[in-house]
Amino acid sequence: MSRISTHCEIHYTVTARSSFAFAVLAARNPHQQVIEEQLIITPELATTRTRLEPSGHDLIRIVAERGPLWLLYDATIELAAFVPPVAPTIETPFAELPTDVLEYLHPSRYCQSDLFARLANKEFRDVAPGFERVTGICNWVYEHLEYVPGSTDVSTSAVDVLVGGAGVCRDYAHLSISLCRALGIPARYVSGYAVDLDPPDFHGFFEAYLGGAWYLFDATRMAPIDGLVRIAVGRDAADVAFAVLVGAANLDSIVISTIDLDRVDPNQTRTTAAISTA
Amino acid sequence: MSRISTHCEIHYTVTARSSFAFAVLAARNPHQQVIEEQLIITPELATTRTRLEPSGHDLIRIVAERGPLWLLYDATIELAAFVPPVAPTIETPFAELPTDVLEYLHPSRYCQSDLFARLANKEFRDVAPGFERVTGICNWVYEHLEYVPGSTDVSTSAVDVLVGGAGVCRDYAHLSISLCRALGIPARYVSGYAVDLDPPDFHGFFEAYLGGAWYLFDATRMAPIDGLVRIAVGRDAADVAFAVLVGAANLDSIVISTIDLDRVDPNQTRTTAAISTA
Amino acid sequence: MSRISTHCEIHYTVTARSSFAFAVLAARNPHQQVIEEQLIITPELATTRTRLEPSGHDLIRIVAERGPLWLLYDATIELAAFVPPVAPTIETPFAELPTDVLEYLHPSRYCQSDLFARLANKEFRDVAPGFERVTGICNWVYEHLEYVPGSTDVSTSAVDVLVGGAGVCRDYAHLSISLCRALGIPARYVSGYAVDLDPPDFHGFFEAYLGGAWYLFDATRMAPIDGLVRIAVGRDAADVAFAVLVGAANLDSIVISTIDLDRVDPNQTRTTAAISTA
Amino acid sequence: MSRISTHCEIHYTVTARSSFAFAVLAARNPHQQVIEEQLIITPELATTRTRLEPSGHDLIRIVAERGPLWLLYDATIELAAFVPPVAPTIETPFAELPTDVLEYLHPSRYCQSDLFARLANKEFRDVAPGFERVTGICNWVYEHLEYVPGSTDVSTSAVDVLVGGAGVCRDYAHLSISLCRALGIPARYVSGYAVDLDPPDFHGFFEAYLGGAWYLFDATRMAPIDGLVRIAVGRDAADVAFAVLVGAANLDSIVISTIDLDRVDPNQTRTTAAISTA
Repeated sequence: MSRISTHCEIHYTVTARSSFAFAVLAARNPHQQVIEEQLIITPELATTRTRLEPSGHDLIRIVAERGPLWLLYDATIELAAFVPPVAPTIETPFAELPTDVLEYLHPSRYCQSDLFARLANKEFRDVAPGFERVTGICNWVYEHLEYVPGSTDVSTSAVDVLVGGAGVCRDYAHLSISLCRALGIPARYVSGYAVDLDPPDFHGFFEAYLGGAWYLFDATRMAPIDGLVRIAVGRDAADVAFAVLVGAANLDSIVISTIDLDRVDPNQTRTTAAISTA
Repeated sequence: MSRISTHCEIHYTVTARSSFAFAVLAARNPHQQVIEEQLIITPELATTRTRLEPSGHDLIRIVAERGPLWLLYDATIELAAFVPPVAPTIETPFAELPTDVLEYLHPSRYCQSDLFARLANKEFRDVAPGFERVTGICNWVYEHLEYVPGSTDVSTSAVDVLVGGAGVCRDYAHLSISLCRALGIPARYVSGYAVDLDPPDFHGFFEAYLGGAWYLFDATRMAPIDGLVRIAVGRDAADVAFAVLVGAANLDSIVISTIDLDRVDPNQTRTTAAISTA
Repeated sequence: MSRISTHCEIHYTVTARSSFAFAVLAARNPHQQVIEEQLIITPELATTRTRLEPSGHDLIRIVAERGPLWLLYDATIELAAFVPPVAPTIETPFAELPTDVLEYLHPSRYCQSDLFARLANKEFRDVAPGFERVTGICNWVYEHLEYVPGSTDVSTSAVDVLVGGAGVCRDYAHLSISLCRALGIPARYVSGYAVDLDPPDFHGFFEAYLGGAWYLFDATRMAPIDGLVRIAVGRDAADVAFAVLVGAANLDSIVISTIDLDRVDPNQTRTTAAISTA
Repeated sequence: MSRISTHCEIHYTVTARSSFAFAVLAARNPHQQVIEEQLIITPELATTRTRLEPSGHDLIRIVAERGPLWLLYDATIELAAFVPPVAPTIETPFAELPTDVLEYLHPSRYCQSDLFARLANKEFRDVAPGFERVTGICNWVYEHLEYVPGSTDVSTSAVDVLVGGAGVCRDYAHLSISLCRALGIPARYVSGYAVDLDPPDFHGFFEAYLGGAWYLFDATRMAPIDGLVRIAVGRDAADVAFAVLVGAANLDSIVISTIDLDRVDPNQTRTTAAISTA
């Protein structure tokens, strides 16, 4: 168990009346408890806050007029970073997958899992099923990609990143998700905050459905196992943008910081394993 | 109001124990009422039937052993093919879209709406909003594509079909959906049955969210306005395959027939307008 | 006939021994005569100058050590901007195309003409063959694209630009070339200098093979008919980069200026027709 | 040295006056000598035969009227299957590449080498340059792809085949060529005949430019080292189609057989190494 403090500050200059939907609030779910949080939007605006499942996060929607817009979100989250004593060795058979999990087998905008069937089978059919296979996927993705900020953009898909050989966290997650789905393992994208991320930013990782539950994985190896805070889940990054904006506004700056309040040793190493679970 | 009779018959030879999920049952929703239906699976197998929202259709799941497998589905559906006296002229502003509609603005596997922003704006920004604009999209798609069975395959996306200039019903729907989303109009894929389809087959069309409700459109102009029976809805065809199969089986044949029981004049012409609504 | 003065100045900082191949010298061919030219490379380096056909331009190759590298090229070119009294109405039949022209019918990296067959036929089969049809293609490209510096990059192909709806000169040329080839009209990319280009830069246009000769076209409408100076020709932009660099160097600046020495009226309007010919 | 007998028989039904360009004749070059050959086209038609460099093959062009068309080509070729005692360890530096070799560094329709730069460097930068590195590329391609007839089609590129994980000979060549070019090694596509190909067909392989000469490689491992007969060379398969047809004709059948006349032991094994050289 660990307590994480997150800080998120976003500045816009709105140039014409604009609608925003923000997905920046920490999710409420069995993995994490929001102990305290503060959301300040300046100027003060009517705010709609809607709980979205299955992630349990609150979407914040506002309409802003011309002028500066400032969103500040501070929270303290207690993570139930439960690492199971025995990792699941079961990939739930298709016939037993709950109906609401099925959609996470489908290909999506950035995760064209239908195109990866042969590759995924060739590389991972001989790996033990369950946790070990998804870990294998994470390690493979980690080995095949180089983490290069700016090497990809908002239209980059798993296909592009496999060929290009480089990407950022969302690309690592998209390729991992594509390979999981191609093997029949439901997988979904998770946006969040991460301790130790350098440079500090929002993070993107993924969950795979194993043995009847969703397990968290992060192929980037950029954060410690107990330093990942979930915001929203979706099929891929298209579903969980930190902000969707309709209108006209310039994004002036984003400041993110994520701190492990219980860490004694500031030099604690990051996980070197490919995955984290909670 | 019209009564439609649908007949669906699918034959497989299962070569190894396989799990199936079938999306072939007519949906229950305000647009259509299932008066009677019969589902026969041979051999007799334990069948799981799960109602899926928002379409209101029942997914049928079975596990079949080696040997022949035969699914027969017959139904009579009463369509409330209500054509509103006044077509909606409103595209719901982003700020007022219900939260559960937002996902139908996101790009998906076959509808990369993010890539079509400029094209959609150029072609349709000067068309009156609402029903007229979506009709304009349908007409544009109809004019730009040639209906050529076999010209596309299961991996063909809206981008491919725009360049290739030909496709089948699913491609018409994917391109239309992409253009709607690019303009900020939520749109989703609908699988179904259609009277007069030649050759008879499953059909694919789409719904756009206008003035607070989902309206049905079909850019192919292949069926009469009151001859479309909905099965399932999803982001694109990836979500509503008539059968998902995990295992090993050969699809031997599909027989579909869809008849308008109330049609007096057998020579009644198809709609020449691009769209149908209900 | 007109005399054009071109000025080209390129500054690099070489950070490790590097080889360069520059394609910046004006071509020698029946369309244009180089009256005088000056090439200065600083520091003074062994320079290989090789005439390349069919364009008749000289490729400049050097090997540079660490440090600043400066290439200056000034030329005066006399254009035989002959506009034929009768535009060709003939597209040379395939059987009569010279063997060395055949390769300009093949798809290339940025001009996937094989994918455009249906679109090209649909849009242009009813246009009169020859000059009028290629003009029609140029006009179509001009209408479909928006000229937006920065909207595309070095990996953007004709397929991408058709979907994206915007591009720069090279994209206009790539899409035009793809449509020509899809119709059986040989077409090739030409790099060059252009009077009045705003902002001043290298330019990209194309040639189509009609009635036994290569005619120049420019779908961007950005330069006057008698203000285009050819450098190199190739299948697409991949063949005619102004500089190919193997090693490590930073491009610090490019300065281009192109002036019509014989223009009396400085306010002479640009061509509003889509094409230029010489 | 070995003597190869090739037989090629192509039947069309021409449905409207059509022009054909056939690239089926064995090339004349230092690697192979055509001892005897016979070309019969039925009906008897005016035939244009043009030698094309650099491959040294003769392109055959005809115009055929409605009716059956039959091309028969038989040849005996003596291969100078010279395997150098010392494999080249040199990749010619960019500055020393002959000007006419430079184009084989450019990306092409099916070999988007610009997109593979990072992948190629990651995988092969630590392999010894020259013959060993290109052999490494062939082995990598052989390991990553599955040879599956029908898995790809005429629009499949190196990017597609890397993701899809399967292909036929042209795809193996395209991916290999892309990786070579991405490393700065000129590479080009070669069409040809191959002993032992199963099923018998035209073959596609490639050449890489090393130490001042073009070396032959074949990543498919489907033919013996001294059983490859060259027809044409080009940037990729787009340049060397066995037939280009403008008009309307149905291809009824192709029959190819290629026999090593000097083979004593009919059970001689195929090369298990990835490459052949001549």
